[in-house]
Amino acid sequence: MAQLIADKRDIDFVLHEQLEVGTEYKGGSYAEFNRKTIDMIIGEARNLGIKEMLPLQKVGDDGCTFDAGTVTVPEGFKHVYDLYCEGEWLAMSDDPDWGGQGLPHAVSMAANEYFYGSCNAFMLYNMLSHGAAKLIESYGTEAQKKQVLKKMFSGQWSGTMLLTEPEAGSDVGALTTVATKNGDGTYSISGSKIFISGGEQNMVENIIHPVLARLEDAPAGTRGISLFMVPKYRINEDGSLGEFNDVVCTGIEEKMGLHGNCTCSLTLGGKGQCIGTLLGEENKGMAAMFQMMNEARQMVGLQGFACATASYIHALNYARERVQTKGLTDPAGSTPVSIINHPDVKRQLLIMKSYVDGMRSLIYFGGLCHDKIAMSEDADERSQYSLLLEVLTPIIKGYITDKAFEVCSHGIQVYGGYGYVEEFPVAQLLRDSRIFMIYEGTNGIQSMDLLGRKLGMKKGKPFMDFLETIHRTIDKAKEVPEVAPLAESLQAFFTRYTEVTAAISKAAMSDKVLDAYAYSHPLLEVTGDLTMAWMLLWRATVAAPLVDKKKKDAAFYKGQITTARFFINTMLPSAMGKMDAIQTCDGAVTAMDDAGFGGK
Amino acid sequence: MAQLIADKRDIDFVLHEQLEVGTEYKGGSYAEFNRKTIDMIIGEARNLGIKEMLPLQKVGDDGCTFDAGTVTVPEGFKHVYDLYCEGEWLAMSDDPDWGGQGLPHAVSMAANEYFYGSCNAFMLYNMLSHGAAKLIESYGTEAQKKQVLKKMFSGQWSGTMLLTEPEAGSDVGALTTVATKNGDGTYSISGSKIFISGGEQNMVENIIHPVLARLEDAPAGTRGISLFMVPKYRINEDGSLGEFNDVVCTGIEEKMGLHGNCTCSLTLGGKGQCIGTLLGEENKGMAAMFQMMNEARQMVGLQGFACATASYIHALNYARERVQTKGLTDPAGSTPVSIINHPDVKRQLLIMKSYVDGMRSLIYFGGLCHDKIAMSEDADERSQYSLLLEVLTPIIKGYITDKAFEVCSHGIQVYGGYGYVEEFPVAQLLRDSRIFMIYEGTNGIQSMDLLGRKLGMKKGKPFMDFLETIHRTIDKAKEVPEVAPLAESLQAFFTRYTEVTAAISKAAMSDKVLDAYAYSHPLLEVTGDLTMAWMLLWRATVAAPLVDKKKKDAAFYKGQITTARFFINTMLPSAMGKMDAIQTCDGAVTAMDDAGFGGK
Repeated sequence: MAQLIADKRDIDFVLHEQLEVGTEYKGGSYAEFNRKTIDMIIGEARNLGIKEMLPLQKVGDDGCTFDAGTVTVPEGFKHVYDLYCEGEWLAMSDDPDWGGQGLPHAVSMAANEYFYGSCNAFMLYNMLSHGAAKLIESYGTEAQKKQVLKKMFSGQWSGTMLLTEPEAGSDVGALTTVATKNGDGTYSISGSKIFISGGEQNMVENIIHPVLARLEDAPAGTRGISLFMVPKYRINEDGSLGEFNDVVCTGIEEKMGLHGNCTCSLTLGGKGQCIGTLLGEENKGMAAMFQMMNEARQMVGLQGFACATASYIHALNYARERVQTKGLTDPAGSTPVSIINHPDVKRQLLIMKSYVDGMRSLIYFGGLCHDKIAMSEDADERSQYSLLLEVLTPIIKGYITDKAFEVCSHGIQVYGGYGYVEEFPVAQLLRDSRIFMIYEGTNGIQSMDLLGRKLGMKKGKPFMDFLETIHRTIDKAKEVPEVAPLAESLQAFFTRYTEVTAAISKAAMSDKVLDAYAYSHPLLEVTGDLTMAWMLLWRATVAAPLVDKKKKDAAFYKGQITTARFFINTMLPSAMGKMDAIQTCDGAVTAMDDAGFGGK
Repeated sequence: MAQLIADKRDIDFVLHEQLEVGTEYKGGSYAEFNRKTIDMIIGEARNLGIKEMLPLQKVGDDGCTFDAGTVTVPEGFKHVYDLYCEGEWLAMSDDPDWGGQGLPHAVSMAANEYFYGSCNAFMLYNMLSHGAAKLIESYGTEAQKKQVLKKMFSGQWSGTMLLTEPEAGSDVGALTTVATKNGDGTYSISGSKIFISGGEQNMVENIIHPVLARLEDAPAGTRGISLFMVPKYRINEDGSLGEFNDVVCTGIEEKMGLHGNCTCSLTLGGKGQCIGTLLGEENKGMAAMFQMMNEARQMVGLQGFACATASYIHALNYARERVQTKGLTDPAGSTPVSIINHPDVKRQLLIMKSYVDGMRSLIYFGGLCHDKIAMSEDADERSQYSLLLEVLTPIIKGYITDKAFEVCSHGIQVYGGYGYVEEFPVAQLLRDSRIFMIYEGTNGIQSMDLLGRKLGMKKGKPFMDFLETIHRTIDKAKEVPEVAPLAESLQAFFTRYTEVTAAISKAAMSDKVLDAYAYSHPLLEVTGDLTMAWMLLWRATVAAPLVDKKKKDAAFYKGQITTARFFINTMLPSAMGKMDAIQTCDGAVTAMDDAGFGGK
């Protein structure tokens, strides 16, 4: 049967054959999760995703309704939200003490692939709720946690993230929302925030807003930002809802996509009646927000990936069904063939597959790193995986969302004219996916994070560990005859990459700093290419010995090898050339005067 | 004053300094067009575009209305259509005997840049009308021409192009619409067509549909296709409108963009009352349609370019105004700067500018080739420029529209979160531009045209001429000290390109044909990159000596050199790597089995 949204066989492959999560979990705190239980969980997620969430995708595209401060989500969202909460999916990997299900993170990534792939706009509500709850779990007092956490993890209340203001986007430090001490331990909040996903909506009783604001006497910039917990309705001692807390939605944005998720403008304390409590320490709001943001960035990578995998599966099914034009090598007059047989269509499907496969492996691997942290009793090991995740974060967020958009564009191209028609699903996936390159830190910011922070962090040790992890895969692949030539090619790429990163790191700390940062995004691109090639080679190395062993799946395993071959031999050479440009680090961008851009 | 839509100074530069059209036109049939008259014409187009058409862009996005067979275009379209027709813009470069204005084509490209950049959806009606009229001018009998041509060139009647059917998209030969001889020289037409831009609309009295159909006894495939002229209303002897001709609009598509232009489904002869006349010869419809299509493909390139230039100018204006974050090399605590000063934003603007500049030069150069054909009295010269245009067509259509979409995506990225909000203009430009990669032959088909036809056409002579034309620019540049190093870099790229095209041409005629065609699109990409670099180097070579001579414009001229430097040193190295992949021509795409793609 044709798959919808995501490829079940490949999900199984990554979890059980590439990452061998069953082995990883043995004997530890996740020991109860064996192949059978994991498959059952993912099967349930698949059912909920395809049966309930997928139908929301189209209706969600008609958007939310704003009327006099209230926002109504699209028809059907509330019903599926209730099912989602009943299934306890919102906090599937969280602490059972707070109502979480305690599932391994790698497994939750697979479940989320079905959920987000079915309807990203719907899932974004839950993603923000979860992020807000995690922030409170990490930084809240015991009282704050008791007040809200179980209700948030259960989905009874939702959560958001109030960061952006009209004049403070990427420049968070420029925000002007003010918090005034009331003397009773609470703060009065006053300001306006924009771009708040799910900032107001009608699926929940109450909304908990973590808000970045500035104490009146705070230092300028990011060092003067504090974090507050601000509910939509105040919360009485007994947990019941109190008065309206003067958080007013003033409008929602008309966007290019993701219409099912309302993007709200909120005014806090317009009538002087908005009360919040401090989350964490005064003036330490940025650090807290960054913790949330790091997790959010990994989830945005998953959002992009989910669009990409859905677009790939749609395009694949279409290319198998759509018959058009005879084959290129067929004698004249023979019958037309499915377009998957035309080289340029097949090439595009292989581009899509190579990215989607690489993304899936990378995202699940990220989940496994979280699991290692959760399972390990060794502080060094926990730190090591935590730092590896930090290195991976700009790749997961920046590279994956860039490439997801490209994959979705190929999805349209494979459909031809039908791809441009909204009756078919691929146009919406492209529109939905475009925001992932922007929110939670634009991909330009991700690239600066990689170059300016992750490369040199802790004297470069975590980055070196990242490279070593990749190199272990290359070494293993060299010993498997079917993939050894690919390993050699990737080895050459890897060697060049280490030279180039050394050169650009050096440039970034010299008086060529502006020139170097003009190559931060190209650096992110080739880093992502290396990461994809690593994952695809790893897959091929696992698959190669199984081609003859498991006859039933021979085509699948051979496909793994061919995909790695395609990516390494056809896609990587461009990246190799790009590394030449990075190494040269030509100063044209710096040299360009404002007036040289014209337009005046 | 900040420019909107297009850069006036750069338009002047290309026409008068790079292409020197005044000199080209001297003494010939375009001799009356000197700099003053040309500027006046473009100034008028600019006024009409910015004052009248630009406001249509937003309202057009709300779409057309379909009701019981009629289509109503968006509010305001009819008023501007009348102004456009009054200005006699529809046939600005056409034969005055048929109501044309006889303007040089290069000049009309500049006028069209303003028109299409202001509102592509509006202009698409006119583009199709013009294409249909040209087809009738070329293939119609004197009687057919007298019947419709002046009314079409004046815009009193519109025209379309009825090609696609549900089962015949890229595979035109699969179409099933039937034409039956009536014995009186007319034909009864019966069939259903889809994806007809402007197939039904309320701005004109009558619509003339060129229709591809099959005579009852025609051979199978493309060799059995004939072209017919089918009016919406029959035309009486005296030119007045007769009975409704049974061409019924059954619906319009809901698309991702270009909403202001209705995409219609038409049923012809549902009641047996659709009468047409033959255009050209029986079973020779494809050749005629290809003539129209070649011109249409060049215009689609212009459509893409117009979106790109508009997005670039919007992003540039925004980046100059939007203040966010202090500069990277500023001491801590200093004030924030316009985002154009941040390296990654500046890099993106430079990517946008280099493509937009290169596209403008290429498209105007294409116009100049048309002018050379119109002016020349030497058949060999006419043939030479005509063949050069044939080589350029897949690049103009395929490469430009691919890159226009990328440019529009950068436009969104420069705007950050605001780019995703439809209140700002860049999201729509991205949505509008996505179709250009598909219609008038997908870009995959363009790449096959380049590899399979244009490279080897007439024993490769036209392609060699194309390369020689480029090489003359490189040779000139070598003699200008400021750009000589760039010329050397492009020379290396050029040399590699000739090797690679030789290799892939050979492969395409061997038993590696499927492998070769899996690289047809990468070949189109590097061919386009070479063409962009050619144009940018040409610009820089013209600009270099003027930096010191024309002080007022020094920044503009320096900008030309820096843009060429950026493209050649930063963008071309990736393309150099891509050529390695093309040369290797790895067979992974061919080797991939259907089952290897998974999804089942």
